[in-house]
Amino acid sequence: MPRPGGIMHREILEQPQAVEETVAATKPAIQDLVKRLRKVGIEHTFIVARGTSDHAATYGLYMLGAIAGRLVGLAAPSLLTCYDADFDLRKSLVIGVTQSGAAIDVHEVLEVGKRRGAVTCALTNTEDSPICAVAEHVLLTHARVERSVAATKTYTTALAVMHQLATRWAGREDLADEIHRVPEWMSQTLELDEVIRHRAERFRFMDCCHWLARGLHYCTAKEAALKMAECCYVVPSPFSTADFMHGPIATTEPGFPCFVVATRGPVFGAVCDVVHALRTRKAELVILSDDDDLLGPARIGLKLPAVPEECSPMVAAPAIQLLALRIALEKGLDPDHPRGLKKVTLTR
Amino acid sequence: MPRPGGIMHREILEQPQAVEETVAATKPAIQDLVKRLRKVGIEHTFIVARGTSDHAATYGLYMLGAIAGRLVGLAAPSLLTCYDADFDLRKSLVIGVTQSGAAIDVHEVLEVGKRRGAVTCALTNTEDSPICAVAEHVLLTHARVERSVAATKTYTTALAVMHQLATRWAGREDLADEIHRVPEWMSQTLELDEVIRHRAERFRFMDCCHWLARGLHYCTAKEAALKMAECCYVVPSPFSTADFMHGPIATTEPGFPCFVVATRGPVFGAVCDVVHALRTRKAELVILSDDDDLLGPARIGLKLPAVPEECSPMVAAPAIQLLALRIALEKGLDPDHPRGLKKVTLTR
Repeated sequence: MPRPGGIMHREILEQPQAVEETVAATKPAIQDLVKRLRKVGIEHTFIVARGTSDHAATYGLYMLGAIAGRLVGLAAPSLLTCYDADFDLRKSLVIGVTQSGAAIDVHEVLEVGKRRGAVTCALTNTEDSPICAVAEHVLLTHARVERSVAATKTYTTALAVMHQLATRWAGREDLADEIHRVPEWMSQTLELDEVIRHRAERFRFMDCCHWLARGLHYCTAKEAALKMAECCYVVPSPFSTADFMHGPIATTEPGFPCFVVATRGPVFGAVCDVVHALRTRKAELVILSDDDDLLGPARIGLKLPAVPEECSPMVAAPAIQLLALRIALEKGLDPDHPRGLKKVTLTR
Repeated sequence: MPRPGGIMHREILEQPQAVEETVAATKPAIQDLVKRLRKVGIEHTFIVARGTSDHAATYGLYMLGAIAGRLVGLAAPSLLTCYDADFDLRKSLVIGVTQSGAAIDVHEVLEVGKRRGAVTCALTNTEDSPICAVAEHVLLTHARVERSVAATKTYTTALAVMHQLATRWAGREDLADEIHRVPEWMSQTLELDEVIRHRAERFRFMDCCHWLARGLHYCTAKEAALKMAECCYVVPSPFSTADFMHGPIATTEPGFPCFVVATRGPVFGAVCDVVHALRTRKAELVILSDDDDLLGPARIGLKLPAVPEECSPMVAAPAIQLLALRIALEKGLDPDHPRGLKKVTLTR
């Protein structure tokens, strides 16, 4: 009998290589796409996705905005698939993200986008999937087949593609080239596996928790909450720290588990303020950070490699995945086969 | 000693009148704004808000998209306030929503918007607030002073303004005029207070729950979850039903409380599918709907007035507010004064 979590664990470990291969393999396609985007004079970008892919979209929104100065919206697919909204998309880029390439609503949004004159792009892990047939541009992650229901390597490789698209569209080759160090940094994060395995027992009976971050790491909080929902059946409650202060913090009783991701960068100070507010409330703090001072007062602190902020969501991802995996195993669950989930979810 | 929840309850009851007064009072300002938007030829709209106001923004996104065919993004404020993203906003409308008019980050986004050539608009309940000074257009809700920390009437009046902006920008006077029946429909919803008061005891020890909806009612799910967080300290877990199926449904054990809002319209069938999946999992279903067939199998069903879908988020709002209020009272909490929250939250 295979060890529960065996597939997911193996796929987590494959990520440095998957990112490296993805970056090399997508380079020409990204160059072509950027050339096209400049020619068309794109004015707005819509990214459409569900689940983990939607968190890659969130990262894309921040990267395209912060680095490339591009207006990005996360499309509400139902506007096109159910409400038939009459958008003019002639100066738009529509990116559909779906690891399987089979998401019906993502496919439909790309189809509508093409019909209305948008530049369309599929970001997927599955060659020859339906989405590749509809989109003019295909950015193919090279994560190889992902067998675990909980997505891991298809997430980080999608981030890598978004990183390259944003930095190269911005003409920031200096930032773009940082990606080549990401595999090595991810390997450093993977070294946390031992400490995470030792500390996971504490969360055996945790039913819900908050995941908090802001800015570029908002995607990390959302993806971590989803991983814990899928693997550990922990009710997901991710927040931008800014939104969290507008109400949800009221739910934080003494001892309530709050997982915070905060690495140094433009939003770091604002997240530290929230950590301070949580300490005042005596919340149980699990902090993932590259900053020793912030880690100090945490009940559990996980030290992330110090890397450029743009790369940090990729580098932090293995830590949140390992947390979800190790807690699931402590709970006696099989993260490779969450109840009632299939690898591909179809939305009508 | 005032009865706990007295202020919030009173403000919930004031909503029909507040909506009526708001619609009358904002008519000229909306006409002016629409004229300006047509003249400029707006190509995209950004709405920036936090907390409850952000849920009014979500409604705005769907209304402006579905009715007016307008591309709308919910701005990630930190892109402008922390990351200094270099957006070209010359054909943009930037709407800042803040009941107090004092939200620093919303203010800052409007300021940057103005500097970069956007048409700027403040949607607020507070005349002469800082945000009114920075925006060129001011849409002032007439909810009068809201004293309860948990926003109620400033939410529904903000929805009313969004409804009018979307329908009038679309030139859909037929839809716009439906707003005049909303106060009467809201009064019908308020008649649910008795049944909600009688059923609230059941949720005395509920710690977390899912709130599920889709499309135009996604804002209802998000606002309901926030109200329950603020008033009842129930960990908020709102989802679009489409996203819910991509993982979070795994957390739904037999008996897990799932609140679903689903009224007849383009997404109704898709939400019914999810209700079916939840029944299979033996979740405890609390359903708010205008459809008797859907209400049938619910553990608790709350019948909403049958109204045009565009108006439904306003008409459903009193029901979710009363649920939060009545459950808070059963828990012995004072929803007028949630722990550690102030009426105005400032984000740096």
